[in-house]
Amino acid sequence: MKRDFITIDDLGDAALVELMDLADRIRGNLRGHTADLPGHVMGSLFLEPSTRTRLSFETSMQRLGGRVVTSSDPDTSSTVKGETLADTVRIVDSYVDVLVLRHPLSGAARLAARLAKGPVINAGDGSHEHPSQTLCDLYTLRCERGPIAGQTVVLYGDLRFGRTVHSLSRALVRFGATVLAIPDGDLTLPPFVMSDLAERPGYGVREVVIDDMEAIFKRRGVCATLIAPRAMLPAAGAGPATLDLAGRRVSAIYVTRLQKERLAGGSGGGTLPILDHRFLSSPTFNESIVLHPLPRVSEIARELDADPRAAYFRQAALGVPIRMALLLWCCGLVDLPKGPERQSSDGAWVEGRCANPSCITAKEAPEWARLVKGASGTARCDYCEEAASGA
Amino acid sequence: MKRDFITIDDLGDAALVELMDLADRIRGNLRGHTADLPGHVMGSLFLEPSTRTRLSFETSMQRLGGRVVTSSDPDTSSTVKGETLADTVRIVDSYVDVLVLRHPLSGAARLAARLAKGPVINAGDGSHEHPSQTLCDLYTLRCERGPIAGQTVVLYGDLRFGRTVHSLSRALVRFGATVLAIPDGDLTLPPFVMSDLAERPGYGVREVVIDDMEAIFKRRGVCATLIAPRAMLPAAGAGPATLDLAGRRVSAIYVTRLQKERLAGGSGGGTLPILDHRFLSSPTFNESIVLHPLPRVSEIARELDADPRAAYFRQAALGVPIRMALLLWCCGLVDLPKGPERQSSDGAWVEGRCANPSCITAKEAPEWARLVKGASGTARCDYCEEAASGA
Amino acid sequence: MKRDFITIDDLGDAALVELMDLADRIRGNLRGHTADLPGHVMGSLFLEPSTRTRLSFETSMQRLGGRVVTSSDPDTSSTVKGETLADTVRIVDSYVDVLVLRHPLSGAARLAARLAKGPVINAGDGSHEHPSQTLCDLYTLRCERGPIAGQTVVLYGDLRFGRTVHSLSRALVRFGATVLAIPDGDLTLPPFVMSDLAERPGYGVREVVIDDMEAIFKRRGVCATLIAPRAMLPAAGAGPATLDLAGRRVSAIYVTRLQKERLAGGSGGGTLPILDHRFLSSPTFNESIVLHPLPRVSEIARELDADPRAAYFRQAALGVPIRMALLLWCCGLVDLPKGPERQSSDGAWVEGRCANPSCITAKEAPEWARLVKGASGTARCDYCEEAASGA
Repeated sequence: MKRDFITIDDLGDAALVELMDLADRIRGNLRGHTADLPGHVMGSLFLEPSTRTRLSFETSMQRLGGRVVTSSDPDTSSTVKGETLADTVRIVDSYVDVLVLRHPLSGAARLAARLAKGPVINAGDGSHEHPSQTLCDLYTLRCERGPIAGQTVVLYGDLRFGRTVHSLSRALVRFGATVLAIPDGDLTLPPFVMSDLAERPGYGVREVVIDDMEAIFKRRGVCATLIAPRAMLPAAGAGPATLDLAGRRVSAIYVTRLQKERLAGGSGGGTLPILDHRFLSSPTFNESIVLHPLPRVSEIARELDADPRAAYFRQAALGVPIRMALLLWCCGLVDLPKGPERQSSDGAWVEGRCANPSCITAKEAPEWARLVKGASGTARCDYCEEAASGA
Repeated sequence: MKRDFITIDDLGDAALVELMDLADRIRGNLRGHTADLPGHVMGSLFLEPSTRTRLSFETSMQRLGGRVVTSSDPDTSSTVKGETLADTVRIVDSYVDVLVLRHPLSGAARLAARLAKGPVINAGDGSHEHPSQTLCDLYTLRCERGPIAGQTVVLYGDLRFGRTVHSLSRALVRFGATVLAIPDGDLTLPPFVMSDLAERPGYGVREVVIDDMEAIFKRRGVCATLIAPRAMLPAAGAGPATLDLAGRRVSAIYVTRLQKERLAGGSGGGTLPILDHRFLSSPTFNESIVLHPLPRVSEIARELDADPRAAYFRQAALGVPIRMALLLWCCGLVDLPKGPERQSSDGAWVEGRCANPSCITAKEAPEWARLVKGASGTARCDYCEEAASGA
Repeated sequence: MKRDFITIDDLGDAALVELMDLADRIRGNLRGHTADLPGHVMGSLFLEPSTRTRLSFETSMQRLGGRVVTSSDPDTSSTVKGETLADTVRIVDSYVDVLVLRHPLSGAARLAARLAKGPVINAGDGSHEHPSQTLCDLYTLRCERGPIAGQTVVLYGDLRFGRTVHSLSRALVRFGATVLAIPDGDLTLPPFVMSDLAERPGYGVREVVIDDMEAIFKRRGVCATLIAPRAMLPAAGAGPATLDLAGRRVSAIYVTRLQKERLAGGSGGGTLPILDHRFLSSPTFNESIVLHPLPRVSEIARELDADPRAAYFRQAALGVPIRMALLLWCCGLVDLPKGPERQSSDGAWVEGRCANPSCITAKEAPEWARLVKGASGTARCDYCEEAASGA
């Protein structure tokens, strides 16, 4: 079976741990792996602007001794001649040994994986997922703060369109962490993520209103969502519980940029204060590292860059060894424990159509579009994972 | 002598056969050739949008262990500073060991070959030629249908601006195939191609009107051109002959996309039905494979993709081994039988100027522009090969 | 200490000579160095259009057996998401072993070097410097005309925005050459360059009016600046001295393109005749080679291309071995004599702000902006090197 990596759930817990162990070993000798993937070619297909992720993957492949071919400018590629993603993928897949795809539409990577004969890695599909970033995030957490179980991680900012937190929040609860999601205005974690988190055995979800830290520096009444093992949740009441931050130790605060390019007109955002020294001087965040998938615009004050807790540039650097490990697995050079978290959806199709206008199936390949039944029984699109309309 | 590959006629019949034999051997062990071209650098100069051809060449070079430097965005290159192609070519040629050039103007590759000290490969020059695609097409025909001699190949679509069919039709008649050209409206094979085909010893050309297959599905009176060994032509009459398809077995139908980016206003196109299951269920095309240089827009119905006769994605994949073979020859690593089909035009210059506004000599290098005498005695441009005006 | 190459003065005279000696040895066996930099990755960050320089660096790295990752399209990179150069540099630096940067703002490379942990090479920063081009220029002069001391080099054209002549003129006087700067109108060498040249021990500067060669072909009264060892200067008088070219032998004339993309509205230019056969047939330029950093637009008549003294394409070719030598030094594979020409500016900071609107500190990183005291005691920006306003 070919080794696609489309969502973080394509790798089970034991596999993720082994992948991080492998990254540790690679990191000790970054320049010593040029004989690992001789004769392998990676197709780097970035149909949406990107620098960091593309360069990180391309550096990783080259550090392994593999080769890279790149198509990164949507305006000069065959798509301007009217080619579908399906055709592009089948062609490039026929040239290379592994395909890394970024695409502006949700579900594009899943479609590509269905069509390609070789392995496909999702390097970001619309506002859906960005699972290799999650590998990098988890790996940074582990390198900087030790085992993930029991950690409390704050997600802060645009949680609706910031796809990196979609993969990350799923992975954090899988490893037994507590997640406190503080959205920027109404840019909350989307339903397809929340339903996954809510279904986690032993976990519960509670809407809360944050108290203290001057209620996040005077914008009093900041709403948030706490996703935690049931024992750690505040008692359920009539309305949202009040969350007293004083008693909590946050191990990391993960900040995301407002995804202006995905905001349709009216949506909110801009309601949260930027992360600055006031946060890190509060007891709650005193020992917290600061993470960010980058690029940063102005969510994190530059004054923090010199603080040793500012871990975002170290986080970027760790993307290379963990992506090297991922490529070694995808190309079949190392094995990982079986047991992907994600159950195969074959055989559980449901009648209906995805109604998400940003789903790849809204643009092409309607013949492949299909709905599947989620764990809670609701139908959702097999590509973008949004709940089906009327389902 | 340096080994340029500008038109398909730069390689003789025996050379083409040996090149395909070499590609067969490479194909058996695609990842085993990384030691073939150590220390060689390919300049990939794509001054017109392209994904497939560029990635195919770059993959090929890398699979041979060579290296690649790429300039693929016309908007960020030195041409925006006003540099001529002649200067760009001389500079990049001085860096690299082999130059692969795509350019929007006809004849650009011939000009580049004249200026470069190293070998130049034409990766498509305007609406002139695209000979490495022809290698791929011929190789696919041979892999899928055996020896080319005696095959009947239908060319279907935009034959005027679809440069791939220009090289292909020449090569097919060289190997003894029969070509039935079915143009989309007035987008027929251009005169510089037809004159070559007509001059082929033993061959004849006949305008025909196609009968049956419900006269290509009800657009009755579809005109076509049959290029075949004389014995296989219908008798010449006053008007176009009627061609009964029923008696013919077509081994491949080669479909091209309407080259909208090259169409000047008024030209036709859009007159032919898209290729769908009705074609393949007719006896004429029953055993025919379907080829396409890709990208496809809507010339081939997607319903055909799953049909084993749909060979266009296999055709794309075969581009890599045949281009690997080509690069090995151009870089001097393998020899091929001498005797290029194309006669050197040196010493047979004719007075006059090319009048083709899409010829590279219309834009630059007027001092190098020259006309040569074709086999039939007519003067034609040595670069774009169009007949000289008034000649 | 890491080995940045931001201005030509980062390497002392002895180091430059050894670098050219190394390039000589490399040039003898260009394809034989693929084992020199295994496991090293170069980040090629071109945030301004370029083909030649980028391809030259990328070819050089690949000929050394290193690998390259490229970000060359400003429009598809993270900068469109609002990322600062400082962040981009820190991220890419964390992936690669050496960073090559081109940027539209002066001083950008110095800022990058301050932030990166690995070595940074300036591949052109605004209208400031382009020191690897200077390596190439010096190396060409030495290959074609022997030792640089005592040569007379004419700089001809846009000397204000043509950053290549800024580095070059500094290097020429360091090696004891005489420079005759003939600007196009008011596009003279900028003050930050002139003050450096004037401070050279044993050197003097004289404004002159050129006499003969029909006073540069009838545009009589052409003003120029002579920078030469004192003994070779005309006597100082009340006004500009008249310079009789007849007695001088010029070893090279270095032509630059009008940098239209940097001209703010009113600036002059276009006052000098294009360089054609009349120059080379004059006794003064009879033995002169013609150099140009390329791309050329129309500053040099194409009729000269075939003249053996037209050295600009040979000059482009020599960029590869000299950049290979540079990369070997930056990556720590070879050592060069210590003693950079440029004194560290640490500890000599001056109060104030740079007022150059094209300086990187005008756009970002105001907290790092600083002025330093030049050799003559004037304050200048540590990044773009322009004199501070009011200083």
